[in-house]
Amino acid sequence: MKVELENVKPMEIEARSFEIITEELGNTVLAPGTELIVKRCIHTSADFDYAKNLCFSEGVVEKALEAIKGGASIVTDTQMAKSGINKKALARYGGQVYCFMSDEDVAQTAKKNGTTRAVASMEKAAAMGEDLIFAIGNAPTALIHLYEMIREGKIHPKLVIGVPVGFVNVVQSKELIMQTQAPYIVARGRKGGSNIAACICNALLYMIDNRR
Amino acid sequence: MKVELENVKPMEIEARSFEIITEELGNTVLAPGTELIVKRCIHTSADFDYAKNLCFSEGVVEKALEAIKGGASIVTDTQMAKSGINKKALARYGGQVYCFMSDEDVAQTAKKNGTTRAVASMEKAAAMGEDLIFAIGNAPTALIHLYEMIREGKIHPKLVIGVPVGFVNVVQSKELIMQTQAPYIVARGRKGGSNIAACICNALLYMIDNRR
Repeated sequence: MKVELENVKPMEIEARSFEIITEELGNTVLAPGTELIVKRCIHTSADFDYAKNLCFSEGVVEKALEAIKGGASIVTDTQMAKSGINKKALARYGGQVYCFMSDEDVAQTAKKNGTTRAVASMEKAAAMGEDLIFAIGNAPTALIHLYEMIREGKIHPKLVIGVPVGFVNVVQSKELIMQTQAPYIVARGRKGGSNIAACICNALLYMIDNRR
Repeated sequence: MKVELENVKPMEIEARSFEIITEELGNTVLAPGTELIVKRCIHTSADFDYAKNLCFSEGVVEKALEAIKGGASIVTDTQMAKSGINKKALARYGGQVYCFMSDEDVAQTAKKNGTTRAVASMEKAAAMGEDLIFAIGNAPTALIHLYEMIREGKIHPKLVIGVPVGFVNVVQSKELIMQTQAPYIVARGRKGGSNIAACICNALLYMIDNRR
């Protein structure tokens, strides 16, 4: 079979990709102000399901951009997501990216309390008392624990990105977080992942950059 | 809405997830010996398309396991994939995980030659002269350059995991790599990603562990 390559310069690949995504979305209706986030999730996964499954709480994009500009840090539940988030862009506003999953004290707390390390990670984050954005791409237990801590008034996240992926309590964890008062961006259903969590963080960072 | 959580212990979540995946795959036919890889990709993405789009060259799984046991290292095109690969498991057989994308010399070579950094990374890997597995989860240009170097006899990869994601030359890059004599695991079409690249590496590592 003859394979024909498209002649696109390295610097133009991303722009051309977004053109194709926009074309193929056709008349699909996206909530105003969320388009860049939705399209970047499709760009990251080549999965157009994200045009339908992403849910945004009211005014969440503006709140998220304000939080980042105000120096909020990001806590995530995987080293992969931490690795994928544009840390230089975030640092320009004063924020850092944390992942506590491999920390020795988190392993000990989890063992002592009989929880997942993801839950213990969220406890550690809550104890920081900082302005935080949570980007959960893997562990529904982390999202469920955030739900509980928000309900108990123990934390007040600036944003919860709820995109764990999988088959056990993933769907439910997302429905729970959407019942809180926290600003959220959630991929309803089973899909998501560390790549999607990082991608949503980066989409927000690039939106600030493009507005300047 | 009342949300009902499934009562599954932390240690049992993965096993329960694989049960659900197996159930939902139903009568879908998977190539013998590839089942664990396919199911782990579905586990990582919650996307059953991987039951259809993953392509395996003849005998590739056995060849890949032999390569790992023989101490082959893994070269990947993103820090995210590097972060996601189980480096401790690989190190037990003597291999390491490399990602050259952020290296200063790679940036310079790319600039000098007018290529992507992904292409320059592949050049750097080829020059190592080691037994290598390539795990490409992002850049079709990396996969296309591997195709060219394989055809020219400059490299003889032990395995090419070809799972870049996206819209420009992604589909084509995968068709090209499948025309070579290199052992390959490819996600045909647009889908893939760093998460899928890491997941396939880990699936292979866990297959060795489970056979012992």
